Amino acid sequence: MQFNTYTELVEQELGQLNLPNDPPGLYEPLRYFLQIGGKRIRPVLTLMAAQLYGDPKNALSQALAIELFHNFTLIHDDIMDNAPLRRGVKTVHEKWDNNTAILSGDVLMIAAYRKLIQGAGDKLSPILELFNQTAVEVCEGQQRDMDFEQRIDVSAAEYIEMIRLKTSVLLGTALKLGAMINNAPASDAENLYEFGVHVGIAFQIQDDILDLYADPEKFGKQVGGDIIANKKTILYLTAIGNASKDQLQVLKNIHADANPKQKVEKAKQLFDHLKVREQCEDLLHEHLGKAMFHLEEVAIDDADKQMLRELAIYLVNREN
Amino acid sequence: MQFNTYTELVEQELGQLNLPNDPPGLYEPLRYFLQIGGKRIRPVLTLMAAQLYGDPKNALSQALAIELFHNFTLIHDDIMDNAPLRRGVKTVHEKWDNNTAILSGDVLMIAAYRKLIQGAGDKLSPILELFNQTAVEVCEGQQRDMDFEQRIDVSAAEYIEMIRLKTSVLLGTALKLGAMINNAPASDAENLYEFGVHVGIAFQIQDDILDLYADPEKFGKQVGGDIIANKKTILYLTAIGNASKDQLQVLKNIHADANPKQKVEKAKQLFDHLKVREQCEDLLHEHLGKAMFHLEEVAIDDADKQMLRELAIYLVNREN
Repeated sequence: MQFNTYTELVEQELGQLNLPNDPPGLYEPLRYFLQIGGKRIRPVLTLMAAQLYGDPKNALSQALAIELFHNFTLIHDDIMDNAPLRRGVKTVHEKWDNNTAILSGDVLMIAAYRKLIQGAGDKLSPILELFNQTAVEVCEGQQRDMDFEQRIDVSAAEYIEMIRLKTSVLLGTALKLGAMINNAPASDAENLYEFGVHVGIAFQIQDDILDLYADPEKFGKQVGGDIIANKKTILYLTAIGNASKDQLQVLKNIHADANPKQKVEKAKQLFDHLKVREQCEDLLHEHLGKAMFHLEEVAIDDADKQMLRELAIYLVNREN
Repeated sequence: MQFNTYTELVEQELGQLNLPNDPPGLYEPLRYFLQIGGKRIRPVLTLMAAQLYGDPKNALSQALAIELFHNFTLIHDDIMDNAPLRRGVKTVHEKWDNNTAILSGDVLMIAAYRKLIQGAGDKLSPILELFNQTAVEVCEGQQRDMDFEQRIDVSAAEYIEMIRLKTSVLLGTALKLGAMINNAPASDAENLYEFGVHVGIAFQIQDDILDLYADPEKFGKQVGGDIIANKKTILYLTAIGNASKDQLQVLKNIHADANPKQKVEKAKQLFDHLKVREQCEDLLHEHLGKAMFHLEEVAIDDADKQMLRELAIYLVNREN
């Protein structure tokens, strides 16, 4: 199967979700948000992992559970981050209000649990334990992310741990659920989990690198947006970690600089001098290497791993 | 066992919940909120129902799950209702902020699921289905409650359906879970559920009646608070349903009256004239009667039902 075939399966299953109509104030925002799309990478990972051990359709409910949970976190995170837009359209709290986004998000989380248990059979208990553990970690990651905004002493290692929790464990869990549903050996399921986690970390590092180093023609967003917003990305934290006392002062000045263009230029100059990009790319390749190591360890035909390998490389090498 | 023995069991289990310490911004608000207490009626109902068919301790995890879920709804509802106080102390969003209350609430809902599945054994699947169904209904009830604030055409029947969803199904589910854990016959579990639902509705009607008709010496709150706040209680909706065109105008004037004392007096006068209290008490006794009917149908020794009967009567006859 091709990536698009998996995506279509996911969209089809989403279309059959049959959310109630009443009360409309609760369910309309969910229909809206679920329809604005996204790449559906997480549920596709579930189906791909399931495909390695049997019919991927066996894992459709769990794939959907992962996508619904992901969307629940987006709806609530958008409130917390005060984000006006998501995928180019208004966020739920912006189009409706905070209360709507809170309650619709809540009911979406419950909907995720409903899908998760469908057809889980004798895997119900381990699937729930994995999902609960991951769900808690995602919340802990979001809390750490918010805490970091108030702190000035965040290390690169703490940042990586934050993104592991906030975004990467869900990718690992997406894969592991698919494997579990089709009775993969426990060691395979675990290696697929680790593959997903490290791909997730590498993906997020790439996200931070692209913000400053993307080709503006291909990027589609303003280059340097994170610098302008004074975000604590892995680039910034690596710079802080390497900077001399004088360079820390330069970073402070950049932080306070009100001229966006000058701000980005000066940051890039200092980052280049500190070889920040190289270090972040090394870190990215460290995690991509770990991901590939765990994929190698999965005890199936090498040819069957090709699609996951390609997806990982695509996610990490993308230019926008 | 006495009510207090059950409460102590619940408090003990809550004390052993062992929430993590880190990140503190996520878990400290939960410790705070879970410690401000409450009567723990829902988990006590779970234990009481379990006691009818075996060792109540078998249902301790499920009892706690119900209490955690209830507290999750309180934390999020308090944001939506803009409530500064809960049980006389600051609400989570007031003591911290909205983001903290959203995310701590989210992780508390997941914690509820974690407790729910502990020791569920071969009942895991039906327990999850019941819990998911109820959790969705509670959200739908909260949405309807918020919708009602914006509407002028709410009927008494719609109001009862709203409180059934928002508060009563959770009482029914608390009982049913306890019965299920100790292998009660399906018909008993269902009758206990219906008992809980109708006690819940009667309880809420009593709440509305007390607001205006409580003995001020025993009530502990300002009598007429709902009238002053223009709340659509069952008293108000019953009045609307019975009022002539002229009386509707009187109600409108009361609604707009800025003098609290006069407002309460005039409402009481009109309500008395329309026999609102009698009708609401009739409705309360209708639901109490349904509750008792379902309790009668439970196929166990009548003597064993005494505690649930007494609890129902206590909840519905309380004076504050």
